Amino acid sequence: MTAYSQFNECIGQINDLCCIANLLMWDERTQMPVHGGLNRGSQLATALRQAQEKFTSKETGILIEQAERELRGEDPDSYRYRNVQQAREAYEIVQKIPLSLVAEQAELVSKAQEVWGAARQKSDFKMFQPYLEHMVKVKQKLAESIGYAVHPYDALLQRYEPGMTAQKLSKLFQDLRTGMKPLLEKIRSCPDPRHDFLYRDFPIEDQLAFATEVVKAFGYDLNRGRIDTAVHPFEISFTREDVRITTRFNRNYLPMALFGLMHEAGHGMYEQGASPEISRTALTTDLLAMYAVAGVSFGMHESQSRLWENQVGRSREFWDFYFPLLKKVFPSPLEDVNTDEFHRAINRVSPSFIRVESDEVTYNFHIMLRVEAEMKMLDGSLPVKDLPDFWNSKMEEYLGVAPDNDAEGVLQDIHWAAGDYGSFPCYTIGNLVAAQVHKSARSNVPRLDEGIRQGDFAPLKEWLQKKIYIHGRSYSTDELLLSNTGKSLSTEDYLLYISEKYTSIYM
Amino acid sequence: MTAYSQFNECIGQINDLCCIANLLMWDERTQMPVHGGLNRGSQLATALRQAQEKFTSKETGILIEQAERELRGEDPDSYRYRNVQQAREAYEIVQKIPLSLVAEQAELVSKAQEVWGAARQKSDFKMFQPYLEHMVKVKQKLAESIGYAVHPYDALLQRYEPGMTAQKLSKLFQDLRTGMKPLLEKIRSCPDPRHDFLYRDFPIEDQLAFATEVVKAFGYDLNRGRIDTAVHPFEISFTREDVRITTRFNRNYLPMALFGLMHEAGHGMYEQGASPEISRTALTTDLLAMYAVAGVSFGMHESQSRLWENQVGRSREFWDFYFPLLKKVFPSPLEDVNTDEFHRAINRVSPSFIRVESDEVTYNFHIMLRVEAEMKMLDGSLPVKDLPDFWNSKMEEYLGVAPDNDAEGVLQDIHWAAGDYGSFPCYTIGNLVAAQVHKSARSNVPRLDEGIRQGDFAPLKEWLQKKIYIHGRSYSTDELLLSNTGKSLSTEDYLLYISEKYTSIYM
Repeated sequence: MTAYSQFNECIGQINDLCCIANLLMWDERTQMPVHGGLNRGSQLATALRQAQEKFTSKETGILIEQAERELRGEDPDSYRYRNVQQAREAYEIVQKIPLSLVAEQAELVSKAQEVWGAARQKSDFKMFQPYLEHMVKVKQKLAESIGYAVHPYDALLQRYEPGMTAQKLSKLFQDLRTGMKPLLEKIRSCPDPRHDFLYRDFPIEDQLAFATEVVKAFGYDLNRGRIDTAVHPFEISFTREDVRITTRFNRNYLPMALFGLMHEAGHGMYEQGASPEISRTALTTDLLAMYAVAGVSFGMHESQSRLWENQVGRSREFWDFYFPLLKKVFPSPLEDVNTDEFHRAINRVSPSFIRVESDEVTYNFHIMLRVEAEMKMLDGSLPVKDLPDFWNSKMEEYLGVAPDNDAEGVLQDIHWAAGDYGSFPCYTIGNLVAAQVHKSARSNVPRLDEGIRQGDFAPLKEWLQKKIYIHGRSYSTDELLLSNTGKSLSTEDYLLYISEKYTSIYM
Repeated sequence: MTAYSQFNECIGQINDLCCIANLLMWDERTQMPVHGGLNRGSQLATALRQAQEKFTSKETGILIEQAERELRGEDPDSYRYRNVQQAREAYEIVQKIPLSLVAEQAELVSKAQEVWGAARQKSDFKMFQPYLEHMVKVKQKLAESIGYAVHPYDALLQRYEPGMTAQKLSKLFQDLRTGMKPLLEKIRSCPDPRHDFLYRDFPIEDQLAFATEVVKAFGYDLNRGRIDTAVHPFEISFTREDVRITTRFNRNYLPMALFGLMHEAGHGMYEQGASPEISRTALTTDLLAMYAVAGVSFGMHESQSRLWENQVGRSREFWDFYFPLLKKVFPSPLEDVNTDEFHRAINRVSPSFIRVESDEVTYNFHIMLRVEAEMKMLDGSLPVKDLPDFWNSKMEEYLGVAPDNDAEGVLQDIHWAAGDYGSFPCYTIGNLVAAQVHKSARSNVPRLDEGIRQGDFAPLKEWLQKKIYIHGRSYSTDELLLSNTGKSLSTEDYLLYISEKYTSIYM
C-alpha cells in the first residue's frame, strides 16, 4: 500500500462518518417519527466525535506527512496533490484550536440556542445578551488561537470562506452600497407592481409536480437524489450519488416552494457534479467543519443555489417558456395574469425587517448590517449591549425601515446562538459569485439564453459542471473565479446584472 | 464521575454507532435513491468498525472491570448489574476471536453472497460448494476459538441464542417431530380448505390502511415508529422511541402484507417496550453481533413476532372481530366468504419446498432439516458436497415433497452465504416460546381471548410489556421463561396449541 492510499483510506473513513452525520440530520428533519428524538443528539455527537478524534490524531498527521513526501514533484494542480493539501491545511488549523475551547463552545451553543429561542419568543434581547457576550469572547479566543494578520475576523472567515478577509469584505461592501443605494431609491419611487395573484389557491401536489419538473429540467438527477418536505429547507449529500433536497409549501403563496426548490437544486447539482474520482476524499469533505460537502466554500455553494434560483429561475427567458406551462397547471388562479405581470411580481422589491423574506435588491443590506456588527463586536468596538441600537439604526439607514421589536430585529437569526460567526458574508459573496459566473457563462456558452427560452438548460448546466462542479474542493473560490471569469471576486458584474434587470422591470 | 457511569458512557457510544448502522441499513432498504449506493457499504463498515474497535479495546476492558468492582454487593438482578454483566460476557467472547478470523470471514461473506446469488440463478450448487466448504472451515475455527463443552455448534449458538446447546436442540426437535408427524399426516388426508378468494384483487392502499389499523390496535406506536415498504420486510430500531417496520404488498394475495406487518409489529412492540432506563446501554445492544436491539435473543425476538402474527393474528377470536371490518374494506372480493372459510384459508397447511412460504405446521420441518445439516457439516459428519442429497432426502422424509432443483432446494436461503450459521434454530425456538408464553398469558390474564374477540389487545400487550419487553436484554430467555411460564423451553405448549388449532380447523 502506498503512503497516499493509506492517507486516502484514513480520510475516506472520516468522510464516511461525516456522511453518516448528514444522514442522521436528514432523517431527523424529514422522516423521524414525532417522538423519535431520544439519543439522536448523542448519535450525531458520537459520529462527529469519532471523525474529529480520527482527524486530529497523531497518526493522521503522520499519514499526511508521508503522503506529502510521496507526492513531492507531482503536479500541484492534480486532485491527488490537492487532496493532501486540503487535509494539511485543515490539520494545521485544528491543531491550533484547544480542545477546551471546542468543549466550551459546544456547551455554550447548546444553552445559547435554547435561550435564543425563548428570548425571541419574548422579544427580549436582554435575556440573550450574556450568551452572545460569551459567544463573542469564545470567538475572540478562537481567532487568537488560529491567528490572523490584520483583523480577528480574518481567522473566523477561514472556516466558511477560505482566503476572504475583513479588509476585502469591507471594500466589496462599500462598492455594493455605493452601487445599490441609488437603484434602491429609484425603485422605491416607482409604483409597486401587481402581485395579488401570488397569494391565491395553489394546491400543494400541483406545486410539487411543477417544481419537480423544473428542477429535473435544470439537471438535478432524481436517480441520485430525492425531494422531501422540511420545515427549514436544505440540501444535503451522502456522496455524489445520493444528494437530497427539500422544500416547504404554502398553499396560498406560490413562490415559496417553487423558488425554494430551484435554490436547493442548485446546491444539489453542485454536489451531484463532483468527479467520481474525488468521492470519499478531502476534496468532498470539509475537514474544518467536519461536514461532507463537495462545494469548495459557503459562498461558492450559495452562488450556485442563487444562480439557478435568481439568474435562471427569476429571469424573463425562463418564464417565456414556463409561464404558459404554469398557467396550464393553475388555470384558474392565473387566469387574469400575463408573463410580464408574473415576471414583475416574482421580482418585486419590498424592503422588510426580515432577511429570509427579502428580495434580491434588499437582501445584501441585511447581510452588510450583520457582518459589520460581527466585525465590530469581535474587535471590541461595539459592546454587545449596544447591538439592538446599532441594528435598528442601520436598518433605518440602509433600508428605511425599523423593526418594532427585537424578535423582528436583532433576534431573527439563529446563527450567532448556533456558533456560526463569520458565515453571514457568504450569502452576499454567493450573490456576487453567481452574477460573475453567470456573466462568464453567457459570454462563453453559445445560445445560453436562447436555450433557456426553450426550456433547455443543458448548455449552462454542462458549462458549470465542467468548470466548477466537477472539481469539488480541489480549487479555491478565487482560483475558480480567476480561471473561469478572468478576475477575482468583484461587485462589477453583480451591479450590472441588478441594474439591467431592475431597470427593465421598474423603469 | 463513577466507574459505572464511565463504563455506561463508553457502551452508550457503542450503542450510538450500532443505531447509526441500523439507520444506514433502513435508509438503504427504504429511502435511498436507485443509484445512491456508492460508499454506503464503506459507511456501514466504518460505523461498525468504530464500534468494534471501541468495544474490544483495552480501555473498555478496564472500564468493565472498574464497574464490576464498584457494583460488588449490588443486587445481581438489577439493570445496572446486568448491564455490566452483559458487557463482560460479550467482551470475554470477542477477546477469544482472532482478528484474522474476523477479517477472513468478512472477505468470504462478501464473495460468497455474490457467488450464492449467481449459483441460485443457475440452480448450480457446485458453484457455491467451495465457498460453503470454506465457510464451514471458518465456523469450525470460530467454534474452536470460542470453546465449547460438547459440540462445536454450542459455541456458534451463543451468538444467536445464549444458553442453547446442540444437545438441548436435538431433544426439542425429536419431541417436535414425534408430536407433529401424526398431525401432519392426518391433515394431509383431509380435504384442502377453500382458499381461492385470497388471490383476488385487493388494492394496495386499502391493504395498507387495514393492516395499519390492526397493528395500531395491537399496540404498535406510530408516534415512535413508522411503516414503509421493503422488498424483504424487516423491523429495525434506533432506540425505543424510534422503531420502524416494513412490509411488502401483493395486490393479488391478501395475506402477504397483512400477516407480514403483524409479524414485524410484534418485533416492533418488543423494541418499543424496553424500559427508558436501559436505553443506550448493553441491555439494548447486542455487543457480540454489534447490533442495536432490545430483544434478548433471536429466538425470543422471533417469538414475539410469531405470537402476534399466529397466536393472535391467525386466531378465530381475532377474525370474529376483524372479518366484518375486512369485508367492509373489500366487499367485492370477499362477498362470498364467511369468517369460518376465511379463518380456514389463512391457516391452510400445504407442504412446500420453500421455507418462507410455508405454514405453521410445516415450517419447523424446514428448520430441523437445516439445523441437522449445520451440525453435521460442522462436526464433519456431512461432507459439504453431499448436502444436496441430504437436503432432498430429508425434504422427502419430513414433508413428502422433493425440490426439482438446487435453487428451490439447498440454495434457497442466503443465511450460510451471509455467514449466519447457527441462527436457523431460532425460528423454531421462536415458535415454541410464542406458544409457551401465550399459554401463560392466557391463564394469567383475565378475559384475554374475550378482549381479542372485541378488538381489545391491551390486556395481552400489557402483560407481555410488563413480563418481557420492559427488560430488554437484562434477563436470559431461560430466565424469562422460568419466571413467566414456570418452566424452561419445551415443546409441550406448542404441540398442544398446534393440535388444538388444527384439529378444530381440519377435523
